Amino acid sequence: MAQKIQTLPGFRDFYPEDCAVRNYVFDHWRAVARRYGFHEYEGPILEATDLYRKKSGDEIVGQLFHFTDKGEREVAMRPELTPTLARMASSRQRDYKKPMKWFGIGRFFRYEKQQKGRLREFYQLNCDILGEATMAADAELIAMAVDLMRGLGFSSDDFFIRLSDRNVWLGFLEAQGVDPARAPEFLQIIDKLEREKPEVTEQKLADLGTTRAAVEAFIAEAASGSPHFQPLLDDLAARGMADFIKVDLGIVRGLAYYTGVVFEIFDMGAKNRAVAGGGRYDNLCALVSDGAADLPACGFAMGDVVIADFINETAAPKKQLLEHLSTAGAADVFVIVADEEKRADALATVQRLRQEGHRVEYPLTPAKMGKQFQVAEAMKARAAVIIGAEYPAVKVKDLAHRVECEVDATAMLAKVREIVASDPGEGPLLA
Amino acid sequence: MAQKIQTLPGFRDFYPEDCAVRNYVFDHWRAVARRYGFHEYEGPILEATDLYRKKSGDEIVGQLFHFTDKGEREVAMRPELTPTLARMASSRQRDYKKPMKWFGIGRFFRYEKQQKGRLREFYQLNCDILGEATMAADAELIAMAVDLMRGLGFSSDDFFIRLSDRNVWLGFLEAQGVDPARAPEFLQIIDKLEREKPEVTEQKLADLGTTRAAVEAFIAEAASGSPHFQPLLDDLAARGMADFIKVDLGIVRGLAYYTGVVFEIFDMGAKNRAVAGGGRYDNLCALVSDGAADLPACGFAMGDVVIADFINETAAPKKQLLEHLSTAGAADVFVIVADEEKRADALATVQRLRQEGHRVEYPLTPAKMGKQFQVAEAMKARAAVIIGAEYPAVKVKDLAHRVECEVDATAMLAKVREIVASDPGEGPLLA
Repeated sequence: MAQKIQTLPGFRDFYPEDCAVRNYVFDHWRAVARRYGFHEYEGPILEATDLYRKKSGDEIVGQLFHFTDKGEREVAMRPELTPTLARMASSRQRDYKKPMKWFGIGRFFRYEKQQKGRLREFYQLNCDILGEATMAADAELIAMAVDLMRGLGFSSDDFFIRLSDRNVWLGFLEAQGVDPARAPEFLQIIDKLEREKPEVTEQKLADLGTTRAAVEAFIAEAASGSPHFQPLLDDLAARGMADFIKVDLGIVRGLAYYTGVVFEIFDMGAKNRAVAGGGRYDNLCALVSDGAADLPACGFAMGDVVIADFINETAAPKKQLLEHLSTAGAADVFVIVADEEKRADALATVQRLRQEGHRVEYPLTPAKMGKQFQVAEAMKARAAVIIGAEYPAVKVKDLAHRVECEVDATAMLAKVREIVASDPGEGPLLA
Repeated sequence: MAQKIQTLPGFRDFYPEDCAVRNYVFDHWRAVARRYGFHEYEGPILEATDLYRKKSGDEIVGQLFHFTDKGEREVAMRPELTPTLARMASSRQRDYKKPMKWFGIGRFFRYEKQQKGRLREFYQLNCDILGEATMAADAELIAMAVDLMRGLGFSSDDFFIRLSDRNVWLGFLEAQGVDPARAPEFLQIIDKLEREKPEVTEQKLADLGTTRAAVEAFIAEAASGSPHFQPLLDDLAARGMADFIKVDLGIVRGLAYYTGVVFEIFDMGAKNRAVAGGGRYDNLCALVSDGAADLPACGFAMGDVVIADFINETAAPKKQLLEHLSTAGAADVFVIVADEEKRADALATVQRLRQEGHRVEYPLTPAKMGKQFQVAEAMKARAAVIIGAEYPAVKVKDLAHRVECEVDATAMLAKVREIVASDPGEGPLLA
């Protein structure tokens, strides 16, 4: 017991200054989801391990935090939300009008080697549209992904969307005479194309009956214009988002359940990493519900770790975040107890100001006036209300402009409201 | 694999309508915490099992979801936040001005028998003040607890605060000549006083060298006035909260780490349950940090399950919740595609309205006008913007008042803003 207990590797403590960054991202995610008409949902952190086995086979179990609970159930801390969503949506699909536009923000767990951008516990935004089979749903999701980035301050200089479709590759396999049953194997090769040694890829493709040259020519051809994506591209062009999209069959996403359009938000800088990604998974609801439900679906996820890194490495988004943080958590009003005899009146004033919705602080214990003003300034309070011997007459001070006035306790409320609502950069209200 | 996978017992799915209730409670929790000057923080879901053993001994492990991870670490899903807070605060106490007023909202896990008000996965609000040893901190917390309840619509008819102090009991033990080393044992007996058979309690107290009669007389005496609590009661009286407080030594809280004032928010109705509770734990930071830190501290927690039940069983809070839900998730604007030739213009309009901050919906696929209006009404949209052959002339309809006007695409934005900001109960703007 002599050893100090520490945070587990890959897990984080969110001290208030970290939590403020987290909340900045969450509030932004929620605001964009709201504007896009998505409804928030959430599932449990713990699920039956079979939910993940069913979808992805035993290999996924290697990355799970999983165990047998006290009731002899095999359970796992969720590594992603899509299987839960498929379970939830399938079991009550009749209760909701289609399309269902749902989003969730929650925590996920993967037992992976810790590295930059990858932790064992992380948050993810998940956005999904269920019950719509056409590319109109994929377009709405991609538009949302673009706005999630733009709202954080990123521009088309910083990121773009890589757009692909697994069905297009199935067409390629057919044309090449490759056995369609080997499509999953082929897609895994494409998924690793950018990371694998060319000769290894060449060998694997030869085994399937095609070549790297054929694959690369197919990717180049699609990049220069593919009628398959036209409805999606037209939709996004109508929204003024054509600049953000690049058809790129080089991505297919790793997960087994994708069936059609897949896409990634891609960092254009030196890092070249995927900031978010998703796609269509039209068969998953049927799979999870053993055929009881059958809902076409598409969605994507964005994690908090990569996006926070990306913000910190990009000038405009970082500036926007720092501006937000400069006032986040600031007090509105600090009530100064100038005379301890009047502490009861000060406490009554604190409560009255809080009832008005202000964020109000005060000294819990007696302190000198000068010290109290220091604390008020450290808390970035906009107004100080000074309660002293002359109560119910009180002084109200506009701390940004260093001007004060004397009012009675009733007029004080209006004065404080004025100061808190004012722009600290403009001229004083109390001159 | 043929069996449908279900939610684990004691775990919940939050469908959008459930999530809206959860968010109503969370938003309220955050708003009150903000007004009280608390800063949000969060810890990891998974901690070293020793963190809980250290604090409460091996018995707590019986209620944990715990396991050995792939790296041979003994880990547990957190059953409460206080040990994490003590760990976090101790390791960086020099970085923060005192008092530290911190709150967190997160998920917790206990392997317990499922019953009303008690699930295996639940949310909790935790509010703590660290670095202040006087009752001024306890008073600020209790005031916050009262406002958490009042803000949800509860009145002094519905709940009160039971206020106690373990130190007062230590004085009693001394006066009775009971060995102070047996205080933990004694406090466990008091904790069970209201649930245990009187003769069992009598026997246990006799073993310690005191009697049930002495204990009950002591409780009654304190209830009729105890100078010990006067500073706390004066503070709360100054805030207009005297009515909510009852000194009641009959509660001591179950957890081993409490050292001073303890309190519970108590449901006054037939249920007689604790809605929230907490107290002072001045030794926990030193214990968790092996003496490296020493911070006086107090705090309380409120769970989402009991409070949601209490809201649903109490008229005024339930009405307030239902009023909130009646418009939560409603669309602001529905863009109607009256002519599919103009879909690109409709999409551009959707994006323009979203940029203005509106929650905007539209039909993903072609649909008849009447059907589109039905969907708009089902979504409780305030305004419909109708994009047809005459674009850029568009129609804007105030759906609450069933009046419409024809404007150009530019004037449309101002018109929609007016409708969305208007009170649906008042006269039409477009008459």
